[in-house]
Amino acid sequence: MHKKLLIATVPLFLVSMFTYAQTDDSLIIKRIMDEVLLNGKAYSNLYKLCKTVGQRLSGSAGMYKGELWGLDALKAAGAEKVYLQECKVPHWVRGQKEFAVFRTSKQIGGQVFNVLAIGNSVGTGEKGISAQVIEVRNFEELEQRKTEIRGNIVYYNYPFNKTLLHSAYGDAVRYRGGGASGAAKYGALAVIVRSVTGAYDDNPHTGALRYNDSFPMIPAVAISTKDADKLSGFLKSKYHNEELFLRTNCVMKPDTVGHNVIGEITGSEHPDEIITIGGHLDSWDPAEGASDDGTGMVQSIEILKAFKAIGYRPKHTIRIVLFANEENGGKGGAKYAEEAKTRNEKHIMAMESDGGAEYPRGFGCGMTKEQYAKVLSWKKYFEPFDADKFSFSEGGSEGADIGPLQTNFKTAQFGLNTTGQRYFDMHHSALDVFEKVNAQELNLGAAVMASMVYLVDKYGL
Amino acid sequence: MHKKLLIATVPLFLVSMFTYAQTDDSLIIKRIMDEVLLNGKAYSNLYKLCKTVGQRLSGSAGMYKGELWGLDALKAAGAEKVYLQECKVPHWVRGQKEFAVFRTSKQIGGQVFNVLAIGNSVGTGEKGISAQVIEVRNFEELEQRKTEIRGNIVYYNYPFNKTLLHSAYGDAVRYRGGGASGAAKYGALAVIVRSVTGAYDDNPHTGALRYNDSFPMIPAVAISTKDADKLSGFLKSKYHNEELFLRTNCVMKPDTVGHNVIGEITGSEHPDEIITIGGHLDSWDPAEGASDDGTGMVQSIEILKAFKAIGYRPKHTIRIVLFANEENGGKGGAKYAEEAKTRNEKHIMAMESDGGAEYPRGFGCGMTKEQYAKVLSWKKYFEPFDADKFSFSEGGSEGADIGPLQTNFKTAQFGLNTTGQRYFDMHHSALDVFEKVNAQELNLGAAVMASMVYLVDKYGL
Repeated sequence: MHKKLLIATVPLFLVSMFTYAQTDDSLIIKRIMDEVLLNGKAYSNLYKLCKTVGQRLSGSAGMYKGELWGLDALKAAGAEKVYLQECKVPHWVRGQKEFAVFRTSKQIGGQVFNVLAIGNSVGTGEKGISAQVIEVRNFEELEQRKTEIRGNIVYYNYPFNKTLLHSAYGDAVRYRGGGASGAAKYGALAVIVRSVTGAYDDNPHTGALRYNDSFPMIPAVAISTKDADKLSGFLKSKYHNEELFLRTNCVMKPDTVGHNVIGEITGSEHPDEIITIGGHLDSWDPAEGASDDGTGMVQSIEILKAFKAIGYRPKHTIRIVLFANEENGGKGGAKYAEEAKTRNEKHIMAMESDGGAEYPRGFGCGMTKEQYAKVLSWKKYFEPFDADKFSFSEGGSEGADIGPLQTNFKTAQFGLNTTGQRYFDMHHSALDVFEKVNAQELNLGAAVMASMVYLVDKYGL
Repeated sequence: MHKKLLIATVPLFLVSMFTYAQTDDSLIIKRIMDEVLLNGKAYSNLYKLCKTVGQRLSGSAGMYKGELWGLDALKAAGAEKVYLQECKVPHWVRGQKEFAVFRTSKQIGGQVFNVLAIGNSVGTGEKGISAQVIEVRNFEELEQRKTEIRGNIVYYNYPFNKTLLHSAYGDAVRYRGGGASGAAKYGALAVIVRSVTGAYDDNPHTGALRYNDSFPMIPAVAISTKDADKLSGFLKSKYHNEELFLRTNCVMKPDTVGHNVIGEITGSEHPDEIITIGGHLDSWDPAEGASDDGTGMVQSIEILKAFKAIGYRPKHTIRIVLFANEENGGKGGAKYAEEAKTRNEKHIMAMESDGGAEYPRGFGCGMTKEQYAKVLSWKKYFEPFDADKFSFSEGGSEGADIGPLQTNFKTAQFGLNTTGQRYFDMHHSALDVFEKVNAQELNLGAAVMASMVYLVDKYGL
């Protein structure tokens, strides 16, 4: 099919490089779009990543396989320099499958729950923990019931509020991130957290937690949304005094070595001014990290390929960065900014895609008001693709990996925004697989990213 | 989960009906949104339709089961009057599985292709057709090669042009709709049409054709996109003279009786002024008609339920119509408009959802300039949901089923528009199943539709 379509678009490709100066930007953007939609490699790159590498949590064998995949993919896309940037990364290992069950009572003995240890958490050890479960709706209720907590397991049953649309995740993820230490403060032995998802099924969703050094580190698991309700049902019944047995086998090993994988094209006019574009290489272990963040990487890589295919030579140096360790440490993004500072590099723009590859609705723009005014003047180029919803935050960060550049350099930041309502159904769960990604939506995102990079590269910011 | 979330939104529900006049429209729209997103029944209604009714092509047993499902669903949603409107519908039957194979040559004998008879087409009969295949890229090439056509099978290998985004379907569907008669004009025995889809797989996509009475009715099949390329490969090889054997067992039976299924709430102030909202009941036979157009029906039905749940009593009569026979005749929409004319009904607005339930990006608006100016003044209410992309066509039709009302009554028309890039991957194929629909996107579409109906009902157009 691609072959046929290529023929149909040949006339566009006949426009030579030398006519660029006279060519309307909308025509070049259309060429970028056509190139990515018809000949893009993002989808096949993603397939290879998902099916031959799979999960690639920091420190795992998958991480190293993923780095090799990244080097290859960047070279194939036309990067002139491809290299690794070393950084220390945490090495958390899940170990054997988690187990949570009511087993003391004859009546409800054997009620097993779908749980998944939360990343970075300590394990219970072989012997596990048996304790009563105290269900709280939120941190306020935990506070009110703080005297009941000691020696028990705290169960945060905070629902994902679908009516908040794009803010629902941020609202609910507080319990996964800070719930363990919040409960440890009052003597809890472990925590169970309702999975941070709007989906209603049997898949628990993992993700990272952060321990507060002031309190003991206690085990933490996420529970699937269906089992969250089942557990809640038991805790409201006459069985609420039953002890739950919880066993997790995860362990945090010593830090190990990981890498940012970087591919670069040197700028023709401003080789010392850098545009960074990226997604993150690491992914959670229950699945393939297709949407989180395989899609962000292959979209970023596609930009190099698209520029080359249409014969556009960037004025600024373009760096595609596949960041290490976004999920449970952020060490790759931090390292990249740190190295940039050490070398006194000038970073004019950074762009990140880390919200899945649903239909692209536009960009979050973290920059100065003056820069944003310029970006808004380009809105018209994104209208034909329904990708012209821009939002602004003055000097804001637009991604976990590019954020540190903002802090150091006042680099204009772009985060790809998508419709994003399916993403958290699969995010950090066994459902984050290649088959959930739509090729056309993936390509549209890449093409929209490439178009914005083209404009910034051509006109500056 | 829903139970928990309800509690969280109770304060909104305490706002009594009597305070409506003072309540900001954005607050009511937020209540509609919250109600649909948290308590909507669209997804479970769709599940029941897909899994207990399944395909419901006009004249099939599924059509009648679907009508009964519709009556129940409309009653459950709070319709005060629920009734059937009889109309004659075509009764096309696919019969036994289609078969296309190269079987004359020893070298490539047994090469079977995934084909599906195109709806409304005649069959080849038991004996099938054996003939050489002439591949053409488009109608222009057919015209150039018209002297070669007689006695052969014409293969339209026109690709779905993904770069056209929302226009790609309209561009490519001409070959499915008019290809058979176009080739019959020059003496072709049958036609094969590349499936009208951007997906690249083994699923052929059916749909309707229209015969031109001036030429013989010849059999027509759609071929999967992968097999389209395989066939094209053979036709470019030394085997291009091989005869393809094609057998289809479809037959057009005499018209039969179907029904528009209608549920109504009588308007409190203008009972004689009608707002029609609908999707179509019939669906193609390879799958469950989940996205085409189960989603349009359940979204429409959801509007009644949402109004009742928040205590909003419409001023105008609201009619939810599950239209018969959109797919291969359009008899339901035509009958509805005809009856409305006979009864001299006043129709102030019609809305249709028949493009799947991906993220709603807004509405196509077919109306007067003055009406559209009013609609644009409401844009702000749709911005928080990213559903504020409105397009305008003066006096245009915004759907196959509501279009006839425009012709007769100058009824303002709204067609729900979505991001729509996944829809044609499954459309009219074995992939159009419940599992491809996302609950949150489905509900967002229903909520956006309900919000627009609320505004038109309250302020008129």
